[in-house]
Amino acid sequence: MRYFILGAGSWGCTIAQLLKENGHDVLLWAHTNELAQKLNTSKTMPHIDANLDVYVTSDISIGKEFDVIVIATPTQFIRNVLKMIDYKPSIVLNLSKGIEIATGKRISEIVHEILGCEYAILSGPSHAEEVAKKLPTAVVVAGSNAEVFQKEFSNEYFRVYTHDDVTGIELAGALKNVIAIAAGIVDGLGGWDNAKAALITRGLYEMIKFGMHFDANPLTFMGLAGLGDLVVTCNSKHSRNRRYGEMLTKEFDPINLLQASKEVVEGAYTCKAIIENYGHKFDLPIMKEVYEVIYNKKSPLESIKSLMNRTLKVEMEEVKKWLEKNLKD
Amino acid sequence: MRYFILGAGSWGCTIAQLLKENGHDVLLWAHTNELAQKLNTSKTMPHIDANLDVYVTSDISIGKEFDVIVIATPTQFIRNVLKMIDYKPSIVLNLSKGIEIATGKRISEIVHEILGCEYAILSGPSHAEEVAKKLPTAVVVAGSNAEVFQKEFSNEYFRVYTHDDVTGIELAGALKNVIAIAAGIVDGLGGWDNAKAALITRGLYEMIKFGMHFDANPLTFMGLAGLGDLVVTCNSKHSRNRRYGEMLTKEFDPINLLQASKEVVEGAYTCKAIIENYGHKFDLPIMKEVYEVIYNKKSPLESIKSLMNRTLKVEMEEVKKWLEKNLKD
Repeated sequence: MRYFILGAGSWGCTIAQLLKENGHDVLLWAHTNELAQKLNTSKTMPHIDANLDVYVTSDISIGKEFDVIVIATPTQFIRNVLKMIDYKPSIVLNLSKGIEIATGKRISEIVHEILGCEYAILSGPSHAEEVAKKLPTAVVVAGSNAEVFQKEFSNEYFRVYTHDDVTGIELAGALKNVIAIAAGIVDGLGGWDNAKAALITRGLYEMIKFGMHFDANPLTFMGLAGLGDLVVTCNSKHSRNRRYGEMLTKEFDPINLLQASKEVVEGAYTCKAIIENYGHKFDLPIMKEVYEVIYNKKSPLESIKSLMNRTLKVEMEEVKKWLEKNLKD
Repeated sequence: MRYFILGAGSWGCTIAQLLKENGHDVLLWAHTNELAQKLNTSKTMPHIDANLDVYVTSDISIGKEFDVIVIATPTQFIRNVLKMIDYKPSIVLNLSKGIEIATGKRISEIVHEILGCEYAILSGPSHAEEVAKKLPTAVVVAGSNAEVFQKEFSNEYFRVYTHDDVTGIELAGALKNVIAIAAGIVDGLGGWDNAKAALITRGLYEMIKFGMHFDANPLTFMGLAGLGDLVVTCNSKHSRNRRYGEMLTKEFDPINLLQASKEVVEGAYTCKAIIENYGHKFDLPIMKEVYEVIYNKKSPLESIKSLMNRTLKVEMEEVKKWLEKNLKD
């Protein structure tokens, strides 16, 4: 298929180059003519030492000529970029992760609302820099035409699994950022291995429980888009969410720190959206403590203590019940 | 309850001290009188800078006076230690992880064979050193009297969840060591974040698939004894299995390296037991590649390439089928 990629950041460029090398027609769109010209001249990717052999345009109307519109812009800009498209594409493939802060919506909902076309999502543990360097990476793709995308994206270093749970993949990609803030807090308090492993495990369980309320399949969260991406985000030095959590233990004001950050710390906004909309309905102990630390200035150490001293539980009980109920129906 | 703990290594001592501070009667058993005397004189734990305020004996017959026999010896010594017990205890609580190399048996099977008594297991991401320092830790306990153990072990820094899947917890504790060798190989080849996250995710899936053949519940592997322990073992600098994998990329002879290791690299033996007994029956791509690297001197880089170039798949398909079948019955 022929791909028109919205967004010439490091991930958009990396995927464009991969598709080109896999033998497909690709065109990149940048939001300014200046950026397009710069990339066409330098022929290297932004922030990554790798060649870019794909032409970049700033004219979004050319997308009409292509089979697939690929979204690779930051989540908070997606609505405005899609509003610039004045025709109905046949299919959108989304590469971005997050929840729209203003509306609490997932990206599939935004696409449905503005373009009303077919939708697919590709997600998983995939630092752009490593993919650009052709290092081994595995991801999932779900939604319309998933098997076609699986074949067209896969190569010797990029392995694509198909999946059928668009909602689960979207929620996993957004929620992991909240757990990564908590992981950063544990790192900042002392880098305790036991506590961090417990936090990742119980954090994943909380993501699963949240997803169940939206009919996401618990198994999705055990896969590359859930566990895989969570492990990368909680352990990588480059994760801005993890790093923000670490800074919270150094006596900075959480809100000042958030506003001073050059990059959007998605997890802080996702956490706010979730706790304020659902915190009174669902049992979300870790996300609630992250919320308390950021928005009510609770001490990170007190938060860890609160988590340790809850009523003693049976492990995974709610997921078992959900699976029994839903698989029997 | 009153606890008689077999094994005065760092984990046995740490749990003995925890139980004592939680208000229970505890006695430690060491396998030599010399070690017992040394610990009673120094009153500090072996290899850990922490006080040991529990008496140590080398007379195993005293165990008769206690309610619970706790196993905290290396897996390969358990059979011989249990043979020294000349009465039938009411319950054994096992803290050790692994598969008996000579027989391929799980520890519950050894206990059943030799003592024929009730059995429980406590497992999860729990470096002894961190527990001894009272850093936050969460584990699971399953089997006989699980709820009593949950109450008696839990305190403000040690959180215990109950579980009902003894087999799953035992298999998870053993299999994670094989995946940790693979994680070490990825670290040795370049520490690729994407590949390691994919490996942990697909490795957990492989552990789940293996467990399903023994009626272990897939959800067990998503919990602290599975995912939690896997995350610690694949990321910790102290994990001997991960470190062995890393060394395999430095052109050492795998078998010489294994034999020269001061500590038992359990994962290498678990891998051998599994592939030679089950490799022809089950689909276990990662464990097979670890086997090839150790026992057939396959190049680690070739192994990674083999994993990346398998037939393209649907994610988690087999677990879905298992859950549907088993939860419906």
